[in-house]
Amino acid sequence: MMHAVVIHAPRDLRIDPVDVADPGRGEVRVRLAVGGICGSDLHYYQDGGFGTVRIKQPMILGHEVAGTVVVVGPEVTTVAVGDRVAINPSKPCGRCRYCIAGQRQQCLDMRFFGSAQRFPHVQGAFRDEMVIDAAQAVRVGPGTSLQEAACAEPLSVALHAVTRAGSLIGKRVLVTGTGTIGCLTILAARHAGAAEVVVTDISGAALATARKVGASRTLNVATDPQALADFSADKGYFDVAFECSGNGHVVSGLPAVVRAGGLVMLVGLGNDTPLPLSLLVTKEIALHGSNRFDAEFAWATELLARRAVDVRPLLTGAFPMERAVKAFDVAADRSRSMKVQLIFNGQA
Amino acid sequence: MMHAVVIHAPRDLRIDPVDVADPGRGEVRVRLAVGGICGSDLHYYQDGGFGTVRIKQPMILGHEVAGTVVVVGPEVTTVAVGDRVAINPSKPCGRCRYCIAGQRQQCLDMRFFGSAQRFPHVQGAFRDEMVIDAAQAVRVGPGTSLQEAACAEPLSVALHAVTRAGSLIGKRVLVTGTGTIGCLTILAARHAGAAEVVVTDISGAALATARKVGASRTLNVATDPQALADFSADKGYFDVAFECSGNGHVVSGLPAVVRAGGLVMLVGLGNDTPLPLSLLVTKEIALHGSNRFDAEFAWATELLARRAVDVRPLLTGAFPMERAVKAFDVAADRSRSMKVQLIFNGQA
Amino acid sequence: MMHAVVIHAPRDLRIDPVDVADPGRGEVRVRLAVGGICGSDLHYYQDGGFGTVRIKQPMILGHEVAGTVVVVGPEVTTVAVGDRVAINPSKPCGRCRYCIAGQRQQCLDMRFFGSAQRFPHVQGAFRDEMVIDAAQAVRVGPGTSLQEAACAEPLSVALHAVTRAGSLIGKRVLVTGTGTIGCLTILAARHAGAAEVVVTDISGAALATARKVGASRTLNVATDPQALADFSADKGYFDVAFECSGNGHVVSGLPAVVRAGGLVMLVGLGNDTPLPLSLLVTKEIALHGSNRFDAEFAWATELLARRAVDVRPLLTGAFPMERAVKAFDVAADRSRSMKVQLIFNGQA
Amino acid sequence: MMHAVVIHAPRDLRIDPVDVADPGRGEVRVRLAVGGICGSDLHYYQDGGFGTVRIKQPMILGHEVAGTVVVVGPEVTTVAVGDRVAINPSKPCGRCRYCIAGQRQQCLDMRFFGSAQRFPHVQGAFRDEMVIDAAQAVRVGPGTSLQEAACAEPLSVALHAVTRAGSLIGKRVLVTGTGTIGCLTILAARHAGAAEVVVTDISGAALATARKVGASRTLNVATDPQALADFSADKGYFDVAFECSGNGHVVSGLPAVVRAGGLVMLVGLGNDTPLPLSLLVTKEIALHGSNRFDAEFAWATELLARRAVDVRPLLTGAFPMERAVKAFDVAADRSRSMKVQLIFNGQA
Repeated sequence: MMHAVVIHAPRDLRIDPVDVADPGRGEVRVRLAVGGICGSDLHYYQDGGFGTVRIKQPMILGHEVAGTVVVVGPEVTTVAVGDRVAINPSKPCGRCRYCIAGQRQQCLDMRFFGSAQRFPHVQGAFRDEMVIDAAQAVRVGPGTSLQEAACAEPLSVALHAVTRAGSLIGKRVLVTGTGTIGCLTILAARHAGAAEVVVTDISGAALATARKVGASRTLNVATDPQALADFSADKGYFDVAFECSGNGHVVSGLPAVVRAGGLVMLVGLGNDTPLPLSLLVTKEIALHGSNRFDAEFAWATELLARRAVDVRPLLTGAFPMERAVKAFDVAADRSRSMKVQLIFNGQA
Repeated sequence: MMHAVVIHAPRDLRIDPVDVADPGRGEVRVRLAVGGICGSDLHYYQDGGFGTVRIKQPMILGHEVAGTVVVVGPEVTTVAVGDRVAINPSKPCGRCRYCIAGQRQQCLDMRFFGSAQRFPHVQGAFRDEMVIDAAQAVRVGPGTSLQEAACAEPLSVALHAVTRAGSLIGKRVLVTGTGTIGCLTILAARHAGAAEVVVTDISGAALATARKVGASRTLNVATDPQALADFSADKGYFDVAFECSGNGHVVSGLPAVVRAGGLVMLVGLGNDTPLPLSLLVTKEIALHGSNRFDAEFAWATELLARRAVDVRPLLTGAFPMERAVKAFDVAADRSRSMKVQLIFNGQA
Repeated sequence: MMHAVVIHAPRDLRIDPVDVADPGRGEVRVRLAVGGICGSDLHYYQDGGFGTVRIKQPMILGHEVAGTVVVVGPEVTTVAVGDRVAINPSKPCGRCRYCIAGQRQQCLDMRFFGSAQRFPHVQGAFRDEMVIDAAQAVRVGPGTSLQEAACAEPLSVALHAVTRAGSLIGKRVLVTGTGTIGCLTILAARHAGAAEVVVTDISGAALATARKVGASRTLNVATDPQALADFSADKGYFDVAFECSGNGHVVSGLPAVVRAGGLVMLVGLGNDTPLPLSLLVTKEIALHGSNRFDAEFAWATELLARRAVDVRPLLTGAFPMERAVKAFDVAADRSRSMKVQLIFNGQA
Repeated sequence: MMHAVVIHAPRDLRIDPVDVADPGRGEVRVRLAVGGICGSDLHYYQDGGFGTVRIKQPMILGHEVAGTVVVVGPEVTTVAVGDRVAINPSKPCGRCRYCIAGQRQQCLDMRFFGSAQRFPHVQGAFRDEMVIDAAQAVRVGPGTSLQEAACAEPLSVALHAVTRAGSLIGKRVLVTGTGTIGCLTILAARHAGAAEVVVTDISGAALATARKVGASRTLNVATDPQALADFSADKGYFDVAFECSGNGHVVSGLPAVVRAGGLVMLVGLGNDTPLPLSLLVTKEIALHGSNRFDAEFAWATELLARRAVDVRPLLTGAFPMERAVKAFDVAADRSRSMKVQLIFNGQA
């Protein structure tokens, strides 16, 4: 009997039995090994959703997963039984105006694992086995742990943001918020050749991890709220700021410390945020939103496979699926956790 | 005896006698003919300034001017006595890090006519005669009125915003706020080949002028606050929005009606503005500030000289310098005025 | 009985009887009215092809066509019987890596009407009636002639090149070669706000037409081979050159007259061309190829429909389908022809 | 008595006595330690110049140098006596249209050490001591050898090319020609996060060095002229090619192996090169020239100072200034040399 991690209501997370189908044309069946708990999974668990996105029926959580192909359907040529794969949770429609224009992460009919944005919800990937399109399975070499491979999804998010910022060679970079996405953004910015990566957070533990993954300098804005004040001289110090905190107060302060003509890449989700309009105008600041990823998933998998980006300092805990509630509670505690993962089928 | 329009304190606008020097090396003396009253001139007149910029000493107002060269200093080769010229009010330092990088409109040591941003203030151009750098005098042909030539400065602001938006061919454009800058942006966007230019304002008179200068469709958001609601389907309708109102409420609504991956070009100055952070992120909206101009001043002068852009529908009043107080009061009334100009030396 | 214009071998152009099918799901049947003869049609007629593209079986020519919808298949919602339409001759696959990346004009499995690039060849549109995908039929309003609508395809080529060049406001533009594509590029560059459009050709007749459609200055490089020499001072005069001649000697001369950091947009097809490598490097010239179009087809149709671009000066001849051989011979004579069109079904 | 390495005529390289002045306002006097021999130095030595650039008077060679500040002139604040510095050999005018537009590497009045492009020639930096603008002296930390610091200039050239190519994350890169600039481009592309760097050359020794500095795969096109043939499937494999060979035959082959819409960055200087015009057009290839550097010099110095880019595998020889002729002869032998340096004042 197969099982899955199902959210029924806020704080009502269960291990439920589920069926798994045979793969159809172009599909494969994957035995899951590892699944990382994302901030959105935590929001479903703690609050039943976020913003206007709310669970309206039981939904399997999870979209940061890796496993092994166990059955291949007809006409599958890209993967074979036994292949170890990172799983891309996004499946754009290929026909809407955004897909046609090459902006597939903006698909009007996107199916994304473990998301309540559409109804019926798209069921997620925290389960023993599941059927996916072969195109969503990206092979990893034998030398990579599936725990690292399961980081391909959040690393893709960071790569999307960093790639959209253009060349970072010679650039002074700020990263605000050093949770998993913030730390992966530090790694991605370093990989892209950023000259300097200053980071801020309110958690000493998170900042300590940030240093391990390449931050040039860490500033604790809880203990020193004015830590960024010195960076506003001569119309601002940073060429690019990656905003990963989702905190409105943090966002509001960025136009002052980014140089005239500089870029603020918004990655963290958050509520309404007061922005200094005249400063944006007179300094010609650019604010860009960055949403998920597309081609970056394959790049992320390849970087993890040859360990050109080393995410191991971010992996702070692993629990068998059966202990999912415990895992979610641990994941929610920023003072001790960065990325917490579930283990399926006793693998890792 | 020469005279100038001098602001001494809020509502204390005087016609004061002033001296005029002989032009030095590379300089010319210009006899002014026309000067347009800008929103910032009105702010100095009504409130003594705006934001943190406040008059701290008497200052001659004015930076939208045109006139005739009457004396040329040594080593001037680009203009001659008798030339009719539009005057570029900006003089960047040429040595700071922004000038070196080609972002001269961000100069750390900018001298801009009639501005209290530095102290001592840079005196303005509402006066009978003044000495300027020859490089600030741009010749206009004999067929252009100096009233149109005096629009080169605000047209430059619009061209800078439109140019920064990239090619507008095939693009659906929104312009919010149809004051002088908004209407010039409509003209500039039309000149750049925009497929459609929808505009909003709260003044029926301003919208009527907008129609005259090329708006495809005008929406009065005072009488119909939901006028833009239909434009948010399928993640938004407009490719580019030019925000010229400076109204926080208007700015807040733009991410909903601009398509995913679209651009909001911020032109209007304003206070803190609440922005929907998650919508900016998930739709990957780009917000760019646009500040003043640089090379665009010469382009604007050339467009006015061959009337490729026709600003005459915007010219709603002209008063001799002596009646400056009356002119400022008329200029402040949006129900009857768009661009009000002062006439110097009995010319026009 | 339906008929079509079929090329069998060089100089062997026939009017052959053809069948027409019923439209399937998502398809429509169109009664053709007008078809413009393109340079590639002439190459098939005169030489049996160009470069490595050669006719290997009889092929209906034609891809610049407009007509009226006469039958609609199931599930068609975008057009109705009686609609007058411009026909987009390109049909990308939607699945290859270029389609996925939003570069559909680079589709690895493109089907383009009247093209021998694949085998079996894709049959063309010079015929009485044909079945096409509804998505290929773009409605034109009642006020546009179908002769103008049939120019949507070559105008799309020009818009693609101009759009890729970014904002043209304030820019000095050179167009080399003033055949149909060159003249449409002049129109498109003017529509995009180019400050100045200098053009060159070796035909006085073509240059005369270029003046009618907006060239600021025409240079006959047959009678004055050094006509461009003055434009190379100070590292070059033009910001952007659109190369529409396909003549290697012309291309070779462009790096000298384009300013440092400027752009040469290559539109005309041609043979191996010697380029001055060191000049490209030291002046940091950019050469970009521009191929066909994608979204631009809808834009072109809309511009023609509201006559924002007026192509009528380019329409130099119209012949009934039966006189296709005569039409092709006239079209080949640059001294008297620009765009020659065939008329089907006695319409226009 | 100070001495310098002076070229008098082809193959006539002498160690001549020279004077050195006192530094004026804003200037410093530097005691040189190391100077790398560049390809252009070799051209002056072997042929008296290249292209139209020819020595017309005796000229001190050299522009890749590092040393120690020994005297500072009035008003110098950025460096002090005893500072170890890399020397930027370029001095743009700051006033021409390119400097104003932020394209200082295109300055119309550039002064570049050891260059015969203007007359009188700008004397070079292969000498015991020289006076330079303080702005041309960039400090290096105590942990860097001056031999590495003397690579800041050629590394700047590579960084300029790589930066202009935009983000390289996830990109497949080709480097043709693995001389010093080619190898530095490999290092720079790796530093920028390129996913894969395939390289070609005709020298096994050069390719061996390329492997040491990060090439994923090396192809010897002397022994296997068809080595690149497999990369042309599906319209081409590489996203970006950096052309560093200056060989026309190599350049001609690049449009076939770069993907549609891809970029060829031209770095190597060379003669007229036949390019396949139709392939450039139909595949929409972009060719960009890349010339020298500007802001990149400071970035290069910083990367060398913290050894984020390790150039030591490229340093293949060092000779005291007195043995300059020997050094030039060794430098010219690609089978044994990559970067050969001169040592001044017995330092290194």
